[in-house]
Amino acid sequence: MDIKRYLEQKRDEVDRFLESVIPGAATPPTTLHESMRYSLFAGGKRVRPILAIASAEAVGATSKAILPVASSLELIHTYSLVHDDLPAMDNDDYRRGKPTNHKVYGDAMAILAGDALLTLAFELCSRSDLMDGLDPARQVQIVRELAYGSGNLGMVGGQVLDIQAENKDIDLATLQNIHKHKTGMLIRAAVRMGAITAGATSPQLDSLTKYAEDIGLAFQIADDVLNVTGTREELGKDANTDAKRGKKTYPTFYGVDGAKKMADECTQRAISRLSSFDAKADPLRELARYITSRKN
Amino acid sequence: MDIKRYLEQKRDEVDRFLESVIPGAATPPTTLHESMRYSLFAGGKRVRPILAIASAEAVGATSKAILPVASSLELIHTYSLVHDDLPAMDNDDYRRGKPTNHKVYGDAMAILAGDALLTLAFELCSRSDLMDGLDPARQVQIVRELAYGSGNLGMVGGQVLDIQAENKDIDLATLQNIHKHKTGMLIRAAVRMGAITAGATSPQLDSLTKYAEDIGLAFQIADDVLNVTGTREELGKDANTDAKRGKKTYPTFYGVDGAKKMADECTQRAISRLSSFDAKADPLRELARYITSRKN
Repeated sequence: MDIKRYLEQKRDEVDRFLESVIPGAATPPTTLHESMRYSLFAGGKRVRPILAIASAEAVGATSKAILPVASSLELIHTYSLVHDDLPAMDNDDYRRGKPTNHKVYGDAMAILAGDALLTLAFELCSRSDLMDGLDPARQVQIVRELAYGSGNLGMVGGQVLDIQAENKDIDLATLQNIHKHKTGMLIRAAVRMGAITAGATSPQLDSLTKYAEDIGLAFQIADDVLNVTGTREELGKDANTDAKRGKKTYPTFYGVDGAKKMADECTQRAISRLSSFDAKADPLRELARYITSRKN
Repeated sequence: MDIKRYLEQKRDEVDRFLESVIPGAATPPTTLHESMRYSLFAGGKRVRPILAIASAEAVGATSKAILPVASSLELIHTYSLVHDDLPAMDNDDYRRGKPTNHKVYGDAMAILAGDALLTLAFELCSRSDLMDGLDPARQVQIVRELAYGSGNLGMVGGQVLDIQAENKDIDLATLQNIHKHKTGMLIRAAVRMGAITAGATSPQLDSLTKYAEDIGLAFQIADDVLNVTGTREELGKDANTDAKRGKKTYPTFYGVDGAKKMADECTQRAISRLSSFDAKADPLRELARYITSRKN
């Protein structure tokens, strides 16, 4: 299969859907909606929504409910970037090649736009009218996965650990724990939410969860490597920022080549988790490979 | 009925429930959970949860599901206070008589604790194990009410309007629009969520919604009046801050006495919305009176 074409098609589907459900920049309060849209439509690759879609496809379902479910993950991801970039947090000026949200709209609006994107993610998952007849019990389960993956024991918890580790001499176990939460838990939620939308059996959900945990780790190692090897043009943001901040990363512990090898091993392990799935899981297999080979 | 005793009993019930479901300060990441608990257990009156509980009682149900549903509103309310107090927003140093969250834990942790409280609100509403057999379709509806009331077209939208109005010569319609969103929409959600949990009929839900809109306005007018007439000791935060910031409020337009009269009229109107309810709605009736007579 042509993974590049698949990624483009699904990204466009997610973008069209988001465009249709996010209030226009003319809806009051206009600045809030403008600010939300600025970061949401800044050219993200929609990796998490596409993982949810591919996971649903692997299970075999074709419900329209997958679009709101998948898109909610991008709202969470975007809010986390807007808040992470704030001066009180990472203090980043550029993101995806554009000035960060607070550089354009100010800190107060960036905080509120993040809060609104976060909240809208849950609104999207609770819209019965968009769920194509999905069993409400399953819908509740999806909301819970999203909250668990993105909250105090998931992504936000990981961000706390990350901030606390800056300029500290952390060990490998701590680094792994940060990544598991900061990046891994939302990727895990994405894959599980897709699977639950499609009515996965319990063994299917278990296999897909393990797949998600493996690619989550691969994703973060690859991110760490890109931070060292990528250029500002490729990344759309400043390069080599981790080293400048004294942050420990996988390349710090294993070198760039060692880290690349680890990411490849995670990818192979992820693919092996899908052995009981047929060709409908090929997008998931290709996504695992894409995650370690991407350039941004 | 003894409304003071009712308020104390329900507040304690909500507090005990929150205590049982919010991770302890020893659960990693410990600083995050400490910070969340610091603001959550700072002595709030739990007005929104109690409104949800009283609304469910008015309809006549006694499901245990009301506690997680009601408590989720306090998580949303608390997160909004933590974020509103930030230097980038209102820059307040005191709240409920104690230093604000960011004064104790720093801006980054306050942002993240807010994000985590917000997310946990939705996790609480999506916990099937706490719902005492509540119909999942109704549970989905509850999640949606919470998201709608607190998001871009609700509370967050109101906060945006409020910030944009600072030091501007706004008219009464703008002031009303700010209050309707910033305070009113979450109070409306509280009453509706309680009613939906209890299985309200459509006419019951309509009446309770109108009641909620009336007390929401009364609540905000009373808040504006207290800002002028209250002392720092009574309020647990600086007094007369609105005037110092050049903020237009109901007393600006109507004077303190005129505003008090308006609040009383809203209270009477709210109570009249409950004419089709029996004595089980007495707590709602007393709550309407309490809202304009409170001292903080």
